Amino acid sequence: MTEQSTSLQSARARDAADPLAVHRDQFVFADDTIYLDGNSLGRLPGRTAPLLAALVEQEWGSGLIRSWPRWLDRARTVADRIATGVLEVPAGTVVLSDSTTVNLYKVAAAALDARPGRRAILVEQDAFPTDLYVLQGLASARGIDLVTVETDLDAGLDLDVLTRRLTDDVALVCLSQVGYRSGALLDVDAVTAAVHEAGAMIIWDLSHSAGAVGSRLASSQADLAVGCTYKYLNGGPGAPAFVYVRQDLHAQLRQPIWGWFGQDDQFAMAPAYDPVAGIDRFSTGTPNLLGITAVGAGVDTVVAAGIDAVRAKGLALTSYLVELADDWLEPLGFRLASPRDPERRGSHVTLHHLEAWQACQALIDHQVVPDFRTPDRLRLGLSPLTTSYEDVWRALDLLRRLVTDGAHRNYPTVRSRVT
Amino acid sequence: MTEQSTSLQSARARDAADPLAVHRDQFVFADDTIYLDGNSLGRLPGRTAPLLAALVEQEWGSGLIRSWPRWLDRARTVADRIATGVLEVPAGTVVLSDSTTVNLYKVAAAALDARPGRRAILVEQDAFPTDLYVLQGLASARGIDLVTVETDLDAGLDLDVLTRRLTDDVALVCLSQVGYRSGALLDVDAVTAAVHEAGAMIIWDLSHSAGAVGSRLASSQADLAVGCTYKYLNGGPGAPAFVYVRQDLHAQLRQPIWGWFGQDDQFAMAPAYDPVAGIDRFSTGTPNLLGITAVGAGVDTVVAAGIDAVRAKGLALTSYLVELADDWLEPLGFRLASPRDPERRGSHVTLHHLEAWQACQALIDHQVVPDFRTPDRLRLGLSPLTTSYEDVWRALDLLRRLVTDGAHRNYPTVRSRVT
Repeated sequence: MTEQSTSLQSARARDAADPLAVHRDQFVFADDTIYLDGNSLGRLPGRTAPLLAALVEQEWGSGLIRSWPRWLDRARTVADRIATGVLEVPAGTVVLSDSTTVNLYKVAAAALDARPGRRAILVEQDAFPTDLYVLQGLASARGIDLVTVETDLDAGLDLDVLTRRLTDDVALVCLSQVGYRSGALLDVDAVTAAVHEAGAMIIWDLSHSAGAVGSRLASSQADLAVGCTYKYLNGGPGAPAFVYVRQDLHAQLRQPIWGWFGQDDQFAMAPAYDPVAGIDRFSTGTPNLLGITAVGAGVDTVVAAGIDAVRAKGLALTSYLVELADDWLEPLGFRLASPRDPERRGSHVTLHHLEAWQACQALIDHQVVPDFRTPDRLRLGLSPLTTSYEDVWRALDLLRRLVTDGAHRNYPTVRSRVT
Repeated sequence: MTEQSTSLQSARARDAADPLAVHRDQFVFADDTIYLDGNSLGRLPGRTAPLLAALVEQEWGSGLIRSWPRWLDRARTVADRIATGVLEVPAGTVVLSDSTTVNLYKVAAAALDARPGRRAILVEQDAFPTDLYVLQGLASARGIDLVTVETDLDAGLDLDVLTRRLTDDVALVCLSQVGYRSGALLDVDAVTAAVHEAGAMIIWDLSHSAGAVGSRLASSQADLAVGCTYKYLNGGPGAPAFVYVRQDLHAQLRQPIWGWFGQDDQFAMAPAYDPVAGIDRFSTGTPNLLGITAVGAGVDTVVAAGIDAVRAKGLALTSYLVELADDWLEPLGFRLASPRDPERRGSHVTLHHLEAWQACQALIDHQVVPDFRTPDRLRLGLSPLTTSYEDVWRALDLLRRLVTDGAHRNYPTVRSRVT
């Protein structure tokens, strides 16, 4: 990179030419914090607070129980908007319910029931912890094997390595479209085809990709997917999660948690469970309306920009960050711990450094918020709707100055248990 | 009842003498609606909207990911307040997580695992539908029996009838402290003793009692309980639910949904599930912070009044309603479909009438909101903190006038599928 192309002016020129720059206006910027953790908790959309106030004050406070018909409509509408506007799958194939953890439990149990006799689950070695735990729990309860497929911590899963493990004993494969640590983006079409070839079912965890990258669920004919809405979908802390089930599987699969929101003609309150025909049988209990309302506002920010435009900016932002990191940070002991090919990355970039935890604390102290991943990785999330090129420039400029001066060494080397 | 004691003046005199009357000021009353459905969705506390606005605008909008330590504290604090202030059990025995449906699934599965070899679950015939469905799902997955114990629709479960079914093949009994249809209140101490005598475990569903009636979980040494927070605890539509697990069972029970919020030293993100020692192992995924914040405000309204005072007013309100109903409504074809002994009732009263659905619609059209339960029951919820004696008088006075005039016959006789 030339000196000119690493200048602040150059970053500002990129922002000036960015067609998505105007979408920052959809969000609240309370202060000058540079936020590179939208892949953990997305920023607050401007419409969220007024929508929640209307829900609380008018719909709950005044409408009381009479608001349920409109609330049920909203739960369906927001789920359908995630389906058509974010995941690019048909309306009626997504439900907004529970957490990613509980949803993964539901669809994994259903998939295992659909492949009786097969005695193994495959998961990538570097899967997100809650995915590992859910699958460990199911495998141990059923006395089957959870096989972790060797994964490169920087490059993610290799399809050839996976394929070698795809024996006819495999019932289920669970993978993240974008790895939470490396940011590696898997080829959903190719992987799904290989899994189907082996007669297994696949669950895609889209938590680190939904709202940043197209899902490829439709083109790949993937079976099942789960994902969270508080990262790139800006739904707020602990917002309800989504489940996707391919249409032809709705009637075939047995969802294990039978609840009254999965019941046909629910308010008839019949004593025997008789699940509704469509995707709502993957619901369980009473939907979280505050969460659903906030998710509606969050999802709209992505839909307004369009997922292709969001992905294009994500590619440009991560590439820009990698260029600056090569130039400024590599000489300081940082190493790129994400795929170098932009097409194989999601919207975050991870940098390895032996003092990453100290550097992370120093950045936060200077109003730049990245994320840390054990044991020695700095995870920089570039949420395409809210991150500017100037943010990237300022964050990396600060980081190189802190590390050059050794200022990060003033921070603790050991993490406490609560962060 | 004398004519004088059924006068509006008499109702107002009761309100004037009511020590809980001032607690109505904790809530928002948007208009003159008389709301007798606080046992489905409690009213909006005045502190809820400002607390949610602060959560959204400051903690999320400005604090972003940095707010998590305070959010984790809040989740624990609110759960402990439910424990000590509402259920009267020790701090550290309640967690706020998921929905009642999912929580019941978790503790029922754990209880079944703790009684291997026993092949039956007992449930009351008139259990809330989601409880029946969850248990049906578990029984069918495990190939064991779900036995429904005969229950009088008005009087609730009879302990002698239950006891006759308590064979040594029973692993688990699941009952509601207060029946959703009849309002019948079970004797938690006596029932728990009988279940324990038979070597089975018990789950109490406190959804229709928590915040209206003392739980008796501690005195009875009950094993497990679940319950919702959007009824008498005023937590808002779809608020997160609670789970109680008796302290000595924390380490013994196997919670089936292994998630990262149940993991010891969660942010170390170790690959193997190693559940935290205490009650938090009954958590699963990321907690719903909007919901938890609203539940905090809701629970505080009950704690501020004190559960004993709340119960005392509930007894007085339901007794007053029964007296008016005897006097005014019995001659019009209504029949009390709740226990007549106030000590055997929760805080709602159910009236049977062949045209109950039409009467329900007529009341709603006149700004009085009751609830309807199939096939012919009007359910009148008297939330002690927000219902006045005048509310009861006005609601029953309207009902007798509507039915005397036959005005309710102008409404449809058949329910649509969505209400």
